[in-house]
Formats: sequence, C-alpha cells, structure tokens
Amino acid sequence: MANAQLRGVAVIGVGMTRFGQYPEKSAVDHGVEATLAALADARLEWKDIQAAYVGSMNLGGTIGPMTLAEIGLTGIPIMNVENASASGSAAFREAYIAIGAGLCDVALALGIGKMTASQAPRAGAAGPPHGDSFPPAAVFAMRAQRRMFEYGDTADHYAKVSVKNHRHGALNPFSQFQEPVTIDEVRGARMIADPLTVLHCTPRGDGGAAAILCSAEKARALGVSPLITVAASAFRSELYRSPTLDSPTLTEATSREAYEQAGAGPWDMDLVQIHDAFTVEEIDYYEELGLCARGEGAKLIDEGVTEIGGKLPFSTDGGLLARGHPVGPTGLAQVWETVQQLRGTAGPRQVGGASIGLCQMIGAGGVCFVHILKR
Amino acid sequence: MANAQLRGVAVIGVGMTRFGQYPEKSAVDHGVEATLAALADARLEWKDIQAAYVGSMNLGGTIGPMTLAEIGLTGIPIMNVENASASGSAAFREAYIAIGAGLCDVALALGIGKMTASQAPRAGAAGPPHGDSFPPAAVFAMRAQRRMFEYGDTADHYAKVSVKNHRHGALNPFSQFQEPVTIDEVRGARMIADPLTVLHCTPRGDGGAAAILCSAEKARALGVSPLITVAASAFRSELYRSPTLDSPTLTEATSREAYEQAGAGPWDMDLVQIHDAFTVEEIDYYEELGLCARGEGAKLIDEGVTEIGGKLPFSTDGGLLARGHPVGPTGLAQVWETVQQLRGTAGPRQVGGASIGLCQMIGAGGVCFVHILKR
Repeated sequence: MANAQLRGVAVIGVGMTRFGQYPEKSAVDHGVEATLAALADARLEWKDIQAAYVGSMNLGGTIGPMTLAEIGLTGIPIMNVENASASGSAAFREAYIAIGAGLCDVALALGIGKMTASQAPRAGAAGPPHGDSFPPAAVFAMRAQRRMFEYGDTADHYAKVSVKNHRHGALNPFSQFQEPVTIDEVRGARMIADPLTVLHCTPRGDGGAAAILCSAEKARALGVSPLITVAASAFRSELYRSPTLDSPTLTEATSREAYEQAGAGPWDMDLVQIHDAFTVEEIDYYEELGLCARGEGAKLIDEGVTEIGGKLPFSTDGGLLARGHPVGPTGLAQVWETVQQLRGTAGPRQVGGASIGLCQMIGAGGVCFVHILKR
Repeated sequence: MANAQLRGVAVIGVGMTRFGQYPEKSAVDHGVEATLAALADARLEWKDIQAAYVGSMNLGGTIGPMTLAEIGLTGIPIMNVENASASGSAAFREAYIAIGAGLCDVALALGIGKMTASQAPRAGAAGPPHGDSFPPAAVFAMRAQRRMFEYGDTADHYAKVSVKNHRHGALNPFSQFQEPVTIDEVRGARMIADPLTVLHCTPRGDGGAAAILCSAEKARALGVSPLITVAASAFRSELYRSPTLDSPTLTEATSREAYEQAGAGPWDMDLVQIHDAFTVEEIDYYEELGLCARGEGAKLIDEGVTEIGGKLPFSTDGGLLARGHPVGPTGLAQVWETVQQLRGTAGPRQVGGASIGLCQMIGAGGVCFVHILKR
C-alpha cells in the first residue's frame, strides 16, 4: 500500500504549457498558465486550493508566492521546493504528503522552469547552465562508452531511443519538438560527447506544469471519474550513478520501494516516464527499473518493447528528449502525461487500456523520485 | 490541538554554529557542523536519521544532498525547501509534517546560510544581496515613519529594541554580536534609512542550524526528558505588509491559527522569537501577535515587558539584530533558542520556568510561519 499511514490521494487536474524557448515570457507567466490550465481541468476555482508546493531550479526563494500572487492572494501556504531536475516531482510528493496526512483536502503541485537565459538549443551543447545543476552530456557519454565496452551496446541502440521518443513527441501537442527524426539524422547530428550527438540530448526550454491533488474521499464526493490515485511515492538520495555498471543504483532502490508500496512490479506497469535527458539513460533504466537483467536493456529497444504499441511503452509523451526538460516542471509533465493516458485522453499516442503508470525522475545532487499512478 | 490529524512530534536535538562572517568556510561546512551538533545533542547517530529537509536561500537545488553526503550516503530522502528568510522554518515544518504523518520517526531539519559573498556588515547597508531576497531597510523605514506619524512612536522606541536585543545577544555564546550597545550608540550609528541607523538592521552572516524531530511516542521510548513537543505549526502566504497600518496582517492571521492549534493565547507564552530584521518590526509584532492593540506596541518596550526578566521576553537569544540572520538557518536558530529555554539550559539568559515558546518568521514573497513549542 502507498505509504499506508496516509489516506488515499487522487490527481484530479493537470495542466501544462507547451515546453519551448520563450524569451518573451517570464517564469511567472509559465507558472500562471499551467496553474490555470490545471484548475480548468479539475473544474475548480483558485479559492478551492488550500495549499501549494512549487518546484523550480534557481528561480529564487520567492518564486512560488510571487507567481501565485498573480492569480490571487488567498493566504494559503505556498512552499518552494527544489531538487534540481526532480523539483517538479518534489512538489508533487510534498503535496501528496500534505493531503495524505490530512492537513488539507486540495493542493496544487506546480513546477516552473526558465532555462533560456542561455540560448543553447540542447543541454549537452553548452554544458551546465547554472553551476552543477544540469548533468552534462560528458557524464552520460562515459556511461555509454562503458556500456558499449561491457555489454556490447552500440551507438545505434541509443540513437533508436531518440528516434522512438521523438516519434512519441510528434504525437503530443505539448511537446517541444513536434517532428520525428530518423536514425540517420541522429547519427549525423553534431557530436557533443561521443557517442552522443545533439539529438541524444534533452533540449533547453521553458515552461510550467501543474497537478491538482485531492483526497480520494473528496474526489469521489466531487464525482471525479476516472479516479486516478497515487499508488506509490518513493524518494531517496544517494549517488545516482554507481561507480561500476553492475552495483545497485539509486533508481533501482527507489523503484523497489515504489513497487512495494503499489503492490505491483515493473511488468505490471502499462507505461513509464523517466529522466531520459540523454538517450543512454533510458536503456540503463530498463535495467534499473527491473525489466531485465543488467546489460540486456538494449534488447528492449531493438524489439520495440518500449514504444507505443509495444508491451511497455516508455516516454510516451516524447520524454525529456522531445517533450522537453525545463527542469522545474519536468516531473509534473510526467504526471500530466500519465493522467492523460490513464484517462484515455492521450489521442494518437494512447496506450490502449492503460490503468497504471510509473514516473521516475533523478536530479543532480543524487536524488530519485518514483511515483506510481493508477486508475 | 496542533494539526489534530497528525501524531505528536517532539524536538529531541538542536545544534547551531555561531553566526558570523566566515569567508573561509563553505555553506556545506556550516550545514555539516550544525547537523553534527544536533546529532550529538540528541544522542543519535547519522544512521538514525530517516529523512531530511534542508532550507537555504540561493544556494542551489542540490545543497541538501551535497551537504549531507559529507556525513554519509544513507539513501534517505533529502528535500530542499526555500522560502526566503523563513527557509529554516519551512524545513522545520516539512519535517514536522513528515513525522506527524507517520512517514518516518526521526527527521532532520537543517538550515544553511552563506551571505558573505557580499561583505557589507549589515543587510540594510547594502540593500538586497540577491535580487528581492532580502527586505531592504527602506521598506521598514517607511513603516517606521508611518507608525511615528500615526501612533506617536519615536525613533528611540525602535532604538530600545536594538539595545534590548543586543543585551540578550551578549548573553548568548552563539550570537553574532557579543557586545551590548547603548542607546547613544544606536542613535549615533550610520544612518541607513531614516529613522533606522545601521544598528537597527540585522547583520549579514553565515551559519547553520539544525533540529532533530522525532515522533513523541519514540521520544518517550528513548527517555527524552524534558519532552519538548510541537504545539502548533501554522503557515500562510499573503502580502506580509498591509497597505495601511491597521488592516489585518499576515503575522496576525498566522499567529491566530497557531494559537488555536496550541489552545493558548499570546500572553500564555513564556518567550517569543520573531523576525526582528529591523527594530520597528518587533514593535509591530507585539501588536500583530495580539499582545496589545494597534498602536500600543511601543509601551511594551518602554515598560520592559519584553526583556529577559519582563513578563514576556522577545528575542531572548539576541534575535536577528544580534544573534544574526544568515537567512537559511534563522528559523532553526529560533527553535534552538526555544529548546534551550524550555530545557532550562539557557544560562544567564534563562527565562525562569519557561514551558511554552513561540517562533515567528516572515519571508520575502509574503510568507509567515508560526511554530509553538512546549514542554
């Protein structure tokens, strides 16, 4: 059971902006737009929100109250949280705990990102925009090199992840990139850190994403259908990369906690969202999430298992590679996508009969969140 | 009752560094030092800590995990929170909720601040160090001017707050300033924003402060005595200054919530810590916390009510004015002081028979936290 001490929590509304580069918009603009979209989706008014958790990175210790003041000063507690790439997941978790603990019935989890201070088109192209806040491509290129040596992965295995996720992103109107890419385009793109070309790297962007969480009891009273609940919320901090390829990893440990909470295993999932900031990560996470043994992840991309239509689709909205990664909102974009899929409203990228989905995010400093939502 | 949905939570250990200007030390150094002091105080080991909340301002989205990794990678969730001046209070509240909700039994709340990137000795002297992160003296000088016009306060009323709090700070070995100041020194100090001289303004500094929270049940099992519990945790966001002097304020609303949770009123408190970043604030808070009617606060400082030995001492450790205000840890320094007083270990600044204390913090962006601790 999901944190059995807590009462049931539902996600009753989601909203996001289309991620992209918006030099004319402020961080506040993105946060307001996402919040209003989530309120409309939940058919609630701002006055119905009793608490807010706002995740961002390097936007300052006043960003939450400053953003939500634009919608209205209702006096609710507004907590800023920050865990690098996973800041949106952090906001989701704290809102979940507040409701689960009975402190309130309806809370907002909001993520805001504004990364276009630097105009480099892809994270890998320019290195970290803000100190150590963004995992540079070089770290993951080394990972890829080691995997190729140890397991016989090829650069094309990673390229296939980019092709798949861009194909998914092209089916998502909120995706930063709306066009599919071919394997030749991925191979031939500008090299960032061998074997990762720029099309192996998440883009830089801006945006907002929000979720409205509600006690399951109140959601039922409101007549919300389908009722989507939080089946697991696991969070650990550790080195997120182990020194050797086969030692236990942070994602491994965190996902095991989540599976236990949900009473479900990896193959029970209908879809999975992950931190695919660099293509090689997705192959790694197939293994770390327990879908296959160490070193066997590449088979899943070869066999089409993780594309929409396959047995267990990953990154159905395009993932960080195509949907984008403005950092603050990314974890909540994963929730947005999972809710669309569990509602059956994902349109051309719908995973048939989806009833349970997993969202994994890592963040610099060594944090991992795994949330499981089910209907 | 304190958030009646939550189980009882105790504070079983506190630790802090002496606040000051330490150009040779990093933020991580301060965080580690405070954490180790709190662990020693609680007679616990690092492996006993099951979750951590880390409050800071503008130290980046990885500061918590990066700091605590220096003590050891135990895999626990480490959440960064940020609410400007109130970031330490935010960490305390989230740790309180996590334990109250039953997610864990023992958690660390840590605050870290490193403000000496700018070497200006007092916050008011240099304006905000990081964008809008620090309320500049001018805002509070305008407040003072209006109070003098409306209520007949004098500049000396505010100067007396500085004298009192520096006198308290001189009794606290962890205070940034260890020397009392005379009213003539306060009057004659360099003018920042009339009527506030530099001795009306909080100093700039660095430091760390930590509290270890524990379920009351487990604390009893551990034999902790005296048992100090959280009697209230209230948190609101709004404009923290009202447009007119007599309209309701954020501190007023937040403290009323806290009093209701604690089943106690302002005059039931034995001591109070507040956000006295500028002297005029303390007079304001006498009124906003409900000790007296609007406009009558200055009488309390004249009559010595709020000094140690008076009926209800404020800022017993020196407050932001003398103990210091490195932002991230300040809210937890208030908890540190309250715990010393409730234990009866405050030495020459001990408030006789103290059994209940209030900690109020505001933060830029418009946030207010009020915590009440009792033994």
